[in-house]
Formats: sequence, structure tokens, C-alpha cells
Amino acid sequence: MRKWVVHEVLADAAYQYGSIPVISGARRLTYAAVYERSVRLANKMEQLGIGPGTVVGVMDVNSHRYLELKYALSMTGAVIHTINFRLPAADMAFTIHHAHDEWLFVWGGFGEMGAQMASLVSQVVWLEGQPDAPGRSYEELIAGGRLELPAQAERVREDDTYSLFYTTGTTRRPKGLRYSHREMLAASFQIAHDLGLHDTGAGLRADDVLMPLIPFFHIHGWGVPFIAPYLGSALVLPEKAGPGEQVQLIRENRVTWSNMVPTQLFMLLQESGKDRGAVLGLKVLTGGSPLSRGLAEKAAELGVQFSLIYGGSDQLGSAISTAAGLAGEERLERLSTRMTPFPMVRVEIRDGAGAHAASDGATLGEVWVQSPWIPQGYVDDFDESRYAFQSGWFRTGDLAVRYPDGSFQVMDRLKDAIKSGGEWIAGSVIESVISEVPGVEAVAVIGQPDAQWGERPVAVVQAAQDLTAGIIQEYLRQAVSQGRIAKFWLPDRIHFIGAMPMTSAGKLHKAALRRPGALSPS
Amino acid sequence: MRKWVVHEVLADAAYQYGSIPVISGARRLTYAAVYERSVRLANKMEQLGIGPGTVVGVMDVNSHRYLELKYALSMTGAVIHTINFRLPAADMAFTIHHAHDEWLFVWGGFGEMGAQMASLVSQVVWLEGQPDAPGRSYEELIAGGRLELPAQAERVREDDTYSLFYTTGTTRRPKGLRYSHREMLAASFQIAHDLGLHDTGAGLRADDVLMPLIPFFHIHGWGVPFIAPYLGSALVLPEKAGPGEQVQLIRENRVTWSNMVPTQLFMLLQESGKDRGAVLGLKVLTGGSPLSRGLAEKAAELGVQFSLIYGGSDQLGSAISTAAGLAGEERLERLSTRMTPFPMVRVEIRDGAGAHAASDGATLGEVWVQSPWIPQGYVDDFDESRYAFQSGWFRTGDLAVRYPDGSFQVMDRLKDAIKSGGEWIAGSVIESVISEVPGVEAVAVIGQPDAQWGERPVAVVQAAQDLTAGIIQEYLRQAVSQGRIAKFWLPDRIHFIGAMPMTSAGKLHKAALRRPGALSPS
Repeated sequence: MRKWVVHEVLADAAYQYGSIPVISGARRLTYAAVYERSVRLANKMEQLGIGPGTVVGVMDVNSHRYLELKYALSMTGAVIHTINFRLPAADMAFTIHHAHDEWLFVWGGFGEMGAQMASLVSQVVWLEGQPDAPGRSYEELIAGGRLELPAQAERVREDDTYSLFYTTGTTRRPKGLRYSHREMLAASFQIAHDLGLHDTGAGLRADDVLMPLIPFFHIHGWGVPFIAPYLGSALVLPEKAGPGEQVQLIRENRVTWSNMVPTQLFMLLQESGKDRGAVLGLKVLTGGSPLSRGLAEKAAELGVQFSLIYGGSDQLGSAISTAAGLAGEERLERLSTRMTPFPMVRVEIRDGAGAHAASDGATLGEVWVQSPWIPQGYVDDFDESRYAFQSGWFRTGDLAVRYPDGSFQVMDRLKDAIKSGGEWIAGSVIESVISEVPGVEAVAVIGQPDAQWGERPVAVVQAAQDLTAGIIQEYLRQAVSQGRIAKFWLPDRIHFIGAMPMTSAGKLHKAALRRPGALSPS
Repeated sequence: MRKWVVHEVLADAAYQYGSIPVISGARRLTYAAVYERSVRLANKMEQLGIGPGTVVGVMDVNSHRYLELKYALSMTGAVIHTINFRLPAADMAFTIHHAHDEWLFVWGGFGEMGAQMASLVSQVVWLEGQPDAPGRSYEELIAGGRLELPAQAERVREDDTYSLFYTTGTTRRPKGLRYSHREMLAASFQIAHDLGLHDTGAGLRADDVLMPLIPFFHIHGWGVPFIAPYLGSALVLPEKAGPGEQVQLIRENRVTWSNMVPTQLFMLLQESGKDRGAVLGLKVLTGGSPLSRGLAEKAAELGVQFSLIYGGSDQLGSAISTAAGLAGEERLERLSTRMTPFPMVRVEIRDGAGAHAASDGATLGEVWVQSPWIPQGYVDDFDESRYAFQSGWFRTGDLAVRYPDGSFQVMDRLKDAIKSGGEWIAGSVIESVISEVPGVEAVAVIGQPDAQWGERPVAVVQAAQDLTAGIIQEYLRQAVSQGRIAKFWLPDRIHFIGAMPMTSAGKLHKAALRRPGALSPS
């Protein structure tokens, strides 16, 4: 019987789709060439002692090197730690220590930051442009390897750990997650299957040309390094390309499918304004944060189709926005907001007592997910695991509503939500309504302790001089009558503030607003 | 973590696509209703002692009852034996004994044949139209069950045996095969994935309306009972509908996708000649035997798109004909002949020594298949298993050529092929050429012992009076110069025969022709 082991995917691509191009920077490779390089690399790595139990950190932009490492490490039975190089240096170093990385494969292009991380690890391999620092050269490893699979390759089991990576902790240290070969492949392929079989804006076909802009450290670029060879699709790896060069790569290589977060989409669309034809017909899978109405319309205007994916490091992919049979405005709205779970994934919206919330498009509940790839828990973190992972389910901490047709819409993060009389109130939805009032510069809706209701919402507003609480309250009452928010969501109080407190990262500092006394009537 | 267990698929469909219709005969059900009926049925079956280790035979046409049994038996942990009711009665009885069926769920519509099989088993349930024979009533079982999953349901493991079924033995008794829940689901879903992601003639989408004409005893109707709820697609079950009623069902329910063997396609197209619009745009997955040129053209003419699937009871699905980027005549030719393996399936064409045959579209070799669902062997049949199943590979016994683009084309059955000087000759291809010669009424090409070459081909021809060996040989030499057959394939001798020997089943009796002395010069 065939196993679901990562390196089998590339072996098949080399056999079945050997001449399909893999383009990366100035290199124009094929699946056959990438496979040959991966085998030589794995052969050499095994000679150097990399094997089962070795954790190997990788820091690189999306390149053929990263692609090769994802397969070569599988052949040796080692675990790949995909390092998030956008983390603050202290957090990045924390993950390298926490993962017990023995080796680091690092791109020379990271300069000082790369050298700093390299100093934490005993064995270093420079992927390109080796700086004045100790370590081996990647290309020399490949040149020194035989074209012969490591002995370990056929002993790798599908339930062995393939990969280790970390969440982006906003309030605490990153949390680690391990996934097996089978889990990583099943989750990655299910994204492709869903895009091929359901009516989404990012519909995928084997003859598409794929260019992943999601970094390979974010859940392996949402699975694209596995999906592309699985389908035999041409692959364009952007390496360090900025938005301008991305547009050029799309045009030159006739890229038809990509993935990116909304910020990347925004920059790409802005850039392509100068070269409108380049992105026409491009299919984009986006996610990670909400897509604004303005961005969705801009995409539609330039002929870019899109869908939103729902997931994360601690659940992998779970759902995608679909719009079966819809067109125009209605389709745009659906694709921007409404998710349908992947086949074999169960998504439930539950109230605080664990019961199903009504599927009425209004009742808020927490998103719980069960799928074939939900992990057991976070690595070496019992307390966090016990809360988030329960009998095969993952509590996402997201607040959503479910519609009668079975789709769901995420409204807020649970920790930012307000619980009033046992019911949740999505502060972010109220914020969105208030932000429409002319003169509002910034707004935060937070929960304040209340003897009768537990918590009640208070709106904190930074505004132009002439705005009054009465105007905002009147606008909110209209929103109630339009069915946009529930009546009990109406804030008890509008609190004006001179300047909104901000975190060092430039985000609105809600915790500061929640401190006792912070909102005493001024 | 979520398991790949059959009944989870229907549970998800009931939760996610509960109101999607499942139409069967006069009944108009939904996935929610089918799930409820299946749970009640399973609950009652567990009360009656059906559970892990019980083998339950099912004899039915494609109906909601069969669909319910495929899921209800999964919930109890029992094994479903899908009985091929088209086998000769003695073979059918053999499979019931060999499988150790303790229960039989049988449709009343089979009349005497059903009663005969029912007499072989201790516990009988009549699915509809109970004859004057002992046994319980299916609908009473459902009415007597509680809406509560059997205790066993959550203990079923994905590697437990889900199903047992038999090959159609032509020269010997049928051979049995067991598949686990995971294998059956993975193989079924991969058919859908491939049809969704690759350019085939039977492209599948979740919003298609599916009507499976492949009987549910043939590899579970090629997976459709699992694929339809997995996608949330509307399902039309034809029960005992003949070609005329099938056309009516297609029209009434806007069926867009079906599967069938070429004979069924032939009858359906003939029937729809009277109602041409009915099948326009229908997508058909066909297979099981080759599609003739005439039938392919007739399908194209009526606006029916198709692809061929390659597989069988002892390997499940392995490949589908694809035609990426092709149109017109070229597309038709490709879709009628050239297969590409499913993702995660490896198909190799090997010569007699086990080495890869050249991918030149001409060198013949045997088809070997490796996939995540290749079984260990046949049930209780060591000798046959040892030959056919080797280190995770299945030797198909099919003879094929591989093309430079990685696709392959099946030319003959190995047992009908001729081995000359260590190389295979596909007798069926020579037969096809000779059959084009005017005056040829029937032709068989068989191997005759040869001191120098091992075997050499001899063509046995039944012909009109005025045909000579010279005319046939001249025609064959033209075929050589056109590259249709290799020079060493030219038959050593043309042997004329008055009447071709036939088997009792009306097939050409090649074994009789191979008997020593059968072809002595007359």
C-alpha cells in the first residue's frame, strides 16, 4: 500500500510531470530537476547525520531552495521547522530554542538578522550569498550528494512528524504545533479539492500556473508546495519580489492563481493599476484577516476573482468562502464573508454552554472545528492545550454566526467580544457601524462590568469637535431598525477620548481601555 | 482528530447539506432524511445483533435503501458484502458462502432468484415487495429503531474492514477483496478530486446532479454513494429504470453527471435519439470495457461529454482519460484512449523482466499499479494473491503502452498477448487491423509455439469466399508502414476457418483455437 508521505508527492511529479516548469528567480527548473536536486541534497544530509529526530530550521523566502528542503528533509525522516522570519528577533530566537533546532538553513539575503539566528545553532547552511560567517554552502551540499535516496526514505511512516511551526503570539510567546506527513498532505490537498469542486472565486485547475505569495513559513504557504506537484501545475516562486516585480512575474509567466493576505492583495492591485491587463483573470485565495469592502470592489473592478480561506496554524485550513449560483453584487458579498467547511471538516458554532447556536445568521457563538488534521495540542504547553483542544475539537476563539444554508461568518475574536446577560455581543460589528458616522476618527467598543448583565458595551470614540453622543446613538438606533445589530447590543454609553491609546506595534490598545478607571466620566 | 469512517460522510451531509434532495423511485428524500433513516436502521440492527464481525449481504438495484444500508452498516461496525446479482446463480451462491454472509438484505423485485439466495442465509430482510418467504421487512426495521447512533458507531476505526466484494471471474470462481473504510473513501473521493481538478470529459462540480447507472455492487457504483454526500450534490437513484426511463429521469431532474459502461451508454444514446435535448451537456464517466470509435462519435454528436476510468475490483480507481488543452477530433481521440493516473497513484508499464518499458507510445508492457488503496491480496486465496500483489504493487494483467507525456493506453489483456523473442505482441491490435479488410467476418490472433521465438502470431480468419491470405498480408504490411503495428507483429500465417468456435456465453473461444492441432493446415 502507498503511504501519504511528503516526498512521494515530488517523486510522482518527477515521474508523471517531469518537464513542467518550476521557476525561481533566474532559475528555470522542472519537477524532474527539483526532484534530482532534492535527492542529492537528502543523500548528503543523511551522510552528515540528519535523520529521524533531527529538527532542522529553515529561514528563506519562497524559492526553489525552500521547495527542495521541504522534500529533501522528508526523505531523511527529519523534522522541518519553518521559521517565521517576520517575528521580533527575541520571539524568533525563542522558537529556535523551543524547537531544539540543531541545524539552520538560512538565506544569505537576510543579512544581520540571519547571522544573528545562525549564531544560535551549531550547524549552519547558507542558502545563497554566504556572509562572512561560519557555515556550509547549500549548493556544495547538493553537488556532493549522490543521486540515490537516503536509506531512511522508505522507512518514513505517514504518522511521523513532518513539520513543526509556531503561531504568531500577539500577547504571549508563540505556541508550537507539530503535524505528521499525512496531516500536512491531507490538509493541503483538501484546499485544492475544495477549490476544484466548489464554486469559489479562487477555483483551481491542474493547468493553472501557481505563484504563492503566502510565505512558506505560514503553514507551508497554505500548502502550495505540496499542491503544485500533486496537480502537476507549473510553479512560479517569487523569492524576494516586491509588488512591482510580482506584477511582472505574473505577466511574464502567465500566472493564473495566487494566494496572499489582504495587505498583499491591496499592494498588488495598486501596483497593477499601472499595468491593468496583468492581473485580469487572476484567481486569488486570500485570508488571515478580513477583506474590506473597498478592497473587494477594487479586485472585482480589475478582474481579479477571490475567495477567503478560514484556518490558522493551530487548525490548518478548515473552510473557504463559496458562492454557488450567485453573480454580481451578491456574489461579491458572499465571497467576502461567508465560509463553507471543507469536505470531512465539521464546523460548529456553539454558545457558552457548548450547545449549537441557532443557524439564523444572527446568534453569535464560538467556532469549534473538528477535522482529520486537528492536532493533539500545543508543543510542551499543557495549560493552553487543555483549553483549546478538547476531544478532537479545536476551540478557535473566533465568534461567528451560522446561516440557514450552513455557511458561517466570523464576526470577532472571542476575547474582544462582550458577554451580556449570557449572550455575546460582537464589539467589532458595532465599531464598524460607528465608524460610518461622519466625524468619527477612531472607535473601540469594549465590555464594562455590570451588576445586572455581567458586562455591557461602551463605545470609546475619538472624534472631530462637533460630534455628539446623541448623533452616534441615533445612527446606532437606525442600524438596529435595519437589522444590522441587535437592540441589546446598543452601547450603554458613548465615551469621547482625546487620543486612542496605541500599542508599540501601532495597534489599538484595547487592554488599556479596559483598565478600571480608564473610562471614568471626564 | 477526525477519522475517515464511512458514516461520518453522511452525518456531515445531513449537517451541512441537509435539504439537498435524494430522489429514488417515487420517494423524494433529503440527506437529512436519509441520515435519520440510516440511524434508526442501524440502531435496530445493533439490537438484532449485527455488529463487528457480522457480514451482511445486500442485493438491490441502485436505490435509497442501498444508500441507507451502505451507511447504516458502517454505523454498526459490520461488513457489507455487495452481491453481484448479475453473476450466474452458482457463482452468486459461491460468493454468499465464501463471504460467510449471516444476513441478507434482498429486494423483492428479484423474484425467484432473490428467494433462492435468501434460502442460503439464516437471517433475511426484504427490502421491498416481500414475497411469500420468511424474513423481516426493511421498513419495519426502520420504524422500530430509535433515532440514536449505535454504541459501536464511535468505536469504528478507519482501518476496519468496511466492505467485501468479488471480481467477476470469467475462467474461474470470483475472487474476494476486502477494503477498509479509509481505503474505500480515499479511492472514491480521488475520482471526484481528479474530475474536479483535471481537464476530463466528465468534469465534476458540487452543483452537478448525479445519477449513477453503475450498479452499487460494482465497487460501490464507482464511489458515487460516497462522493455525492461528500460534495453535497443532489442524487438521483434510478432503481430499476431501463434506458427509456433513464432519459426521462435525466430530463425531469436535470441530471448533469452519470456513470455507466459503454453498453449502457450505447442504449442511453439510442433511446435519447427520440428526445435529443435530454442528454445534451450530460457528463459521463465510462469504463469497464473499451469505447468504440463509433460510440464516441455518437456521444459527441449528441453533446455528451465523457471520460474513461481505468480500474477494477482488485485495484479500485487508478486513472482517467484526460485531454488538457485539446479540442475537436484530437480531444475525442484522447478521451477515448489515453489515461493519466490519479494523484497519489503510480502507474508503471513494465516489461517481462520488471524494467520500465520505454515511454515511446509503442513498446508494450504490463500495467503495474501502486496506490494508497491497493489491497494485500484476495480473500483466502494465497496462490492468486502471491502472483498479483507484490510489495504493495498490483499486477493488473493488462498490456499497455506509455507515451512521452506520461499517459498510457491499454492495448490488450496479457493472457491474450503473444510473447515473441522476449517482446509482447498485442493480438487485439492486429485483430483490429485485420477486421478492417473487406470480407473479414471474424478474426482471432493467437500465439503458436515456435522453436526460435517462443511464440509467433497466427491469424485465424472467418471470411467471405473470395478473400485470400495475400490480400490480408498486403493490408497488414501497409499497417506496418503507417506505424500502426510493428514489423515483427506480422502474423506468420493466415489460417482460414469455416466458423469461429464460441463459448456458451457467446464469446470468441480463443482457448479452443490454441489447442494443439486445432490449426493444422486444412
